[in-house]
Amino acid sequence: MASKTTVSSVVGSASADAPSAIATVFVGTIVHSLSLSELEILAPGVLGVSADGRIAFVERLEAGKPDDLAAALTRHNASSAQIRRLPAHTLLLPGLIDTHVHAPQYVFTGTGYTLPLLSWLAKYTFPQEKKFASRAHAQEMYPRAVRRSLRCGTTTAAWYGTLHVDATDVLARTCVKTGQRAFVGKVCMDRNGGEGYVEESAAKSLIDTNKWLDDFEALKCGDRVRPIVTPRFAVSCTGELLSGLGDLARERGGLHIQTHLAENRAECAFVKELFPASESYAGVYRDHGLLTPRTVLAHCVHLSDADRTMLHETGAGVSHCPVSNFGLDSGVCDVRALLEAGCKVGLGSDVAGGWSMSIVEAMRSAIVASRVVGHVKHAAATDAHAAKNAHVALSLAETFYLATLGGAKLLDIDSTTGNFAPGKEFDALVVNLDAGGSEDSGARPVDIFDHDDAAEMFEKFVFISDDRNISEVYVAGRRVVGPSGERVDV
Amino acid sequence: MASKTTVSSVVGSASADAPSAIATVFVGTIVHSLSLSELEILAPGVLGVSADGRIAFVERLEAGKPDDLAAALTRHNASSAQIRRLPAHTLLLPGLIDTHVHAPQYVFTGTGYTLPLLSWLAKYTFPQEKKFASRAHAQEMYPRAVRRSLRCGTTTAAWYGTLHVDATDVLARTCVKTGQRAFVGKVCMDRNGGEGYVEESAAKSLIDTNKWLDDFEALKCGDRVRPIVTPRFAVSCTGELLSGLGDLARERGGLHIQTHLAENRAECAFVKELFPASESYAGVYRDHGLLTPRTVLAHCVHLSDADRTMLHETGAGVSHCPVSNFGLDSGVCDVRALLEAGCKVGLGSDVAGGWSMSIVEAMRSAIVASRVVGHVKHAAATDAHAAKNAHVALSLAETFYLATLGGAKLLDIDSTTGNFAPGKEFDALVVNLDAGGSEDSGARPVDIFDHDDAAEMFEKFVFISDDRNISEVYVAGRRVVGPSGERVDV
Ligand SMILES: [Zn+2]
Ligand SMILES: [Zn+2]
Repeated sequence: MASKTTVSSVVGSASADAPSAIATVFVGTIVHSLSLSELEILAPGVLGVSADGRIAFVERLEAGKPDDLAAALTRHNASSAQIRRLPAHTLLLPGLIDTHVHAPQYVFTGTGYTLPLLSWLAKYTFPQEKKFASRAHAQEMYPRAVRRSLRCGTTTAAWYGTLHVDATDVLARTCVKTGQRAFVGKVCMDRNGGEGYVEESAAKSLIDTNKWLDDFEALKCGDRVRPIVTPRFAVSCTGELLSGLGDLARERGGLHIQTHLAENRAECAFVKELFPASESYAGVYRDHGLLTPRTVLAHCVHLSDADRTMLHETGAGVSHCPVSNFGLDSGVCDVRALLEAGCKVGLGSDVAGGWSMSIVEAMRSAIVASRVVGHVKHAAATDAHAAKNAHVALSLAETFYLATLGGAKLLDIDSTTGNFAPGKEFDALVVNLDAGGSEDSGARPVDIFDHDDAAEMFEKFVFISDDRNISEVYVAGRRVVGPSGERVDV
Repeated sequence: MASKTTVSSVVGSASADAPSAIATVFVGTIVHSLSLSELEILAPGVLGVSADGRIAFVERLEAGKPDDLAAALTRHNASSAQIRRLPAHTLLLPGLIDTHVHAPQYVFTGTGYTLPLLSWLAKYTFPQEKKFASRAHAQEMYPRAVRRSLRCGTTTAAWYGTLHVDATDVLARTCVKTGQRAFVGKVCMDRNGGEGYVEESAAKSLIDTNKWLDDFEALKCGDRVRPIVTPRFAVSCTGELLSGLGDLARERGGLHIQTHLAENRAECAFVKELFPASESYAGVYRDHGLLTPRTVLAHCVHLSDADRTMLHETGAGVSHCPVSNFGLDSGVCDVRALLEAGCKVGLGSDVAGGWSMSIVEAMRSAIVASRVVGHVKHAAATDAHAAKNAHVALSLAETFYLATLGGAKLLDIDSTTGNFAPGKEFDALVVNLDAGGSEDSGARPVDIFDHDDAAEMFEKFVFISDDRNISEVYVAGRRVVGPSGERVDV
């Protein structure tokens, strides 16, 4: 690996201690979600971070009144804090949350989008995942995947590893080392693998999962990096394995669970054959004890109203992966229907079914997908105009919520992260919209003009920015991507 | 403006002279389209550029046989040429062609995607375009738009300017100066503008257009930058103006024509009211003499089979702008139906209805849009499975054709550019897939691994690369974006 520097705890780092002194105060344009429909734009605003890496306060400043800042600092006992004045064309945003991503698949991101799911698994996924039997391979590849994720502004990720205990241990250690907040899952599958990429039995899969969980505890990495029980999906797990994993998650204190649900029509048909006794694909997971308030179900493209009600009632939530659904041509998820049914929803990159690690790209595609749902409904309806008018596509505010606070609620970590509410840990991005080159070079992904206000700068961030614009990334108050582009290792 | 350097004619520049000596020979992975369905991947290949900026030869080399290169050089009298060996993870591609883009709208790219077309025109477009009454404003803004376009690898663009003769002259000069191959159009509209952004009469619009065309001739910029007659669309032009522009294009020697057709349902309904005598929206343009083999019609989302036949019969072609169709939620264009009707099709960014200047992004969105057409047909069909199976989405090869050779055919410049056929001018991109940062920094848009072959590198270019990966851009043999990121001015 290239140059390393020791960690730079620029604004303190989170600890379990009582509220501590204010270490750093950011002054500038601050944007975050208060709820699904409420986007708060503080232009300018002020945000204080305590020495233990938590958000101490956030509030609006009266533009053009310097006294206002002084008064805020006094009011919050922050007069001795370091003041970080963000330049014009800079945004302070909460970190992005990727609720569904496969670390071993990073190596083939950008290829294979001519195949549907089941063929794609056989040709690309299983052969590449199989290589992670080697710990050395994991040690070479996982840091590249996690660093790419962090660089794209993902402060929390729910990772799938592979079947391998050893490699998945490397993945968890990589998250600890790079400073990303993460859930890490050893994948379980005891049938329908390819080229020997399958576990020999449900029993062996459960033994390995327990061993891996024991190793995880020994890592003592605290709450920031946590295990998540990961049956790949109903196609590759017997009922015995699904039930065993449901029991295990419950017995080990209510562990998080992640799997795939109703991504593709052929997959849905296959699951119906494999589990004829269950009322639906969602019902398969419920019948095996896998739908809990800490369950993350990726995709949910092909659900019935009854399925959505089932998710709502069990508290299981959905990782919407629009880039992947387009990439593998799986169908289009009706996020509005999920929200109206009361389901929790976050966004996922689903690399490498999705071609981008960026949750900004996922936001753009979520907006497109939501509009496409309107066109599909329009085509299906007998009274076409009524159907199109009845469908309300995702707004910018709603989409940003899904990428941040919605993801945090889905992962049951919204008391810790997801927006800038005081008391939460400081997971944040400094977004420099002038990045990329000189003003007239043509090399900037975003071009800001005098007529752009804070709302328009934020809209440009969503629609046209890329990782170049993410100049700093913080997790729990610790800077994990540095201002000049260098990465910071623990 | 920042630093300027004199033009660097690295591989010679095109002239009308007879074939000249081979100046430069590229050796490496070369990819281009031979036809709609045929993508040629030469890995490795060799391509010779003559001193006058034309392609002298292109052929496959036997991998691992160095003698093969020596033999090719001898055979083509190229032994004294400069040899450019492209590193691994580098592709030589034909330049991308943007067949529909609005230069004045660059300043609000990335904003306004919550409004449908007609409201968006009133709120964003007309007020911003009106500012180009000032030549100084054009001189400040147009270079930023054109440089961004070039930096994204667009070697040919069909630009819309504004109503203003002066500003549109600045746009043409900007294309000449920066070295981009371009069509440049003064926009005409004599009704339904906003805030006074409209010409006072058809007669005045025609007088201004003639004046602008006379100025254009005086520029003497040759074939590389050409005028294009540009009625905005049927909503903003009276029949008198449409007919006048049709006559003018014909009388001045068969000038190119560009306009918008059937982008959005409300627009289509409005045109039906405005032109009750025409059989359809496409028929309006035919009836006013505007459908010719040099006519470029943007969007064509809402067409009938009869409309597609009309386009095929008149030789008018389509600029498909998928990012814009998603951005303004206009609908989804059925490109397969256009191709099956025999229509010419290219890709357009339609900045700022589209949020990206990049035709690579347009390719990705064209693939997504084509898949979405399948889902829409599936929803509409009574026998859903038959409909979905009958729809064949665009392949990678077809999509790249649309972005290059298809665009060249649409603009009737395929004898000059669009692929690497010998005799054409050398419009090309050097794509460095390792760009962005060190291997383990996470800062690379594309990550290439040992298992990637040339076809997979090309697929990664389409699905995950961005402008960072475009390290050099050539137009007619002249380098217009330089290897270290600096731009090159004439
Ligand atoms: Zn997945
Ligand atoms: Zn347009």
